Amino acid sequence: AMAEVMGFRLVAVGEGTATFEAFPSPRYYNPQMRMHGGYCATLIDSAMGCAVQTKLAAKTGYGTIEMKINYVRKLTEETGRITCTGTVIHSGRTMFTAEAKVMDAAGKLYAHGSGTFLVYPE
Amino acid sequence: AMAEVMGFRLVAVGEGTATFEAFPSPRYYNPQMRMHGGYCATLIDSAMGCAVQTKLAAKTGYGTIEMKINYVRKLTEETGRITCTGTVIHSGRTMFTAEAKVMDAAGKLYAHGSGTFLVYPE
Amino acid sequence: AMAEVMGFRLVAVGEGTATFEAFPSPRYYNPQMRMHGGYCATLIDSAMGCAVQTKLAAKTGYGTIEMKINYVRKLTEETGRITCTGTVIHSGRTMFTAEAKVMDAAGKLYAHGSGTFLVYPE
Amino acid sequence: AMAEVMGFRLVAVGEGTATFEAFPSPRYYNPQMRMHGGYCATLIDSAMGCAVQTKLAAKTGYGTIEMKINYVRKLTEETGRITCTGTVIHSGRTMFTAEAKVMDAAGKLYAHGSGTFLVYPE
Repeated sequence: AMAEVMGFRLVAVGEGTATFEAFPSPRYYNPQMRMHGGYCATLIDSAMGCAVQTKLAAKTGYGTIEMKINYVRKLTEETGRITCTGTVIHSGRTMFTAEAKVMDAAGKLYAHGSGTFLVYPE
Repeated sequence: AMAEVMGFRLVAVGEGTATFEAFPSPRYYNPQMRMHGGYCATLIDSAMGCAVQTKLAAKTGYGTIEMKINYVRKLTEETGRITCTGTVIHSGRTMFTAEAKVMDAAGKLYAHGSGTFLVYPE
Repeated sequence: AMAEVMGFRLVAVGEGTATFEAFPSPRYYNPQMRMHGGYCATLIDSAMGCAVQTKLAAKTGYGTIEMKINYVRKLTEETGRITCTGTVIHSGRTMFTAEAKVMDAAGKLYAHGSGTFLVYPE
Repeated sequence: AMAEVMGFRLVAVGEGTATFEAFPSPRYYNPQMRMHGGYCATLIDSAMGCAVQTKLAAKTGYGTIEMKINYVRKLTEETGRITCTGTVIHSGRTMFTAEAKVMDAAGKLYAHGSGTFLVYPE
């Protein structure tokens, strides 16, 4: 699946939170020679979705209905290992919101986002 | 680079607009067995960025500073060929906004988004 | 209610679309002496919500679950009469998405946005 | 100006943070008899903008270029006093991002948002 294809690895999960690690590579650059916006978007969606899942019963279906990403710093291979931690903000019966931040080993922020998730009716 | 890795192909470019085609595949599924949110995010960022580039002089640097995506329909391999058309909404001196829509061959909408792009100072 | 307090007037409604007119005034300035971001946000939420309502049976409850606004040009009293047209993008059974644009009499764009709306269970 | 018109009052300011209080009233309801989406949008833009301003030299011009709001709970007059705290997430030379949360006296969350701010060239 996509997270694996892009080399993301889940490194921590807690109640309402999940952290992935990733290693930026030129393979995912955009034509401007930095990480494509889709790379952090994928990482952020993965981390938020996984954080939401910790709030749901096993087998409950859910999906991202929207997300927004801010890109605040140039991300390249030189950045090295990054982590993305997703955190649930609102837990409802059928709607959840979450946020996520992409940071390097020194705690510098590269991108952050938020999203809305709906539980599918059974 | 990322768009190529994911099999996106630029099929049309005009003044302030660009269209990519793509073929959803299980390789990019999320754990819920549908296309990962990052897939359409990548497609939408590519189409918007390319649309913005048609408004810029060659070699001008620019980047996505934020984007938001709405996911409105389940996207899987069965959907078949999709296209994503990005369109510039606002053209400023240093700031651009654009939108993009992901549709199947029948014109059904799967995701749409908007974003903000800044031209880098030289 | 809020739209009336701020002087918005519904001037056109069609299938999946609604247009409000408004007159920017210093009463709604921010400390930077231009229209507060909340002003166009209110206008855009009104226009999108009204557009969505044209798709629903009378008395159906619905609400905005998220919206995003881009501000692309300075808006002041000197701008004069503006209109904001909301348009439904996606019509589902329980979820709708819509967009809206704020323009002056000459068709210049000042702000644009998109949002997600959920129908409340009865 | 708008924040005053709507009865918002700045109650705390710190380095990179600002808090407003407000009292929801039917005056700002939408046709669904709850607070209009524009009300929290205004509150959130005020709190984020003020938080950003604490990072800038006096007289520096800046503006919201985009914001996104999530509405997670029904807000009415019965909610009583609410506060909205804005916090700077990213501080750059010319670009800032911030987030804000609207909560009631018990700490329940009603809306949250994020935004991007640009410093105007002098």
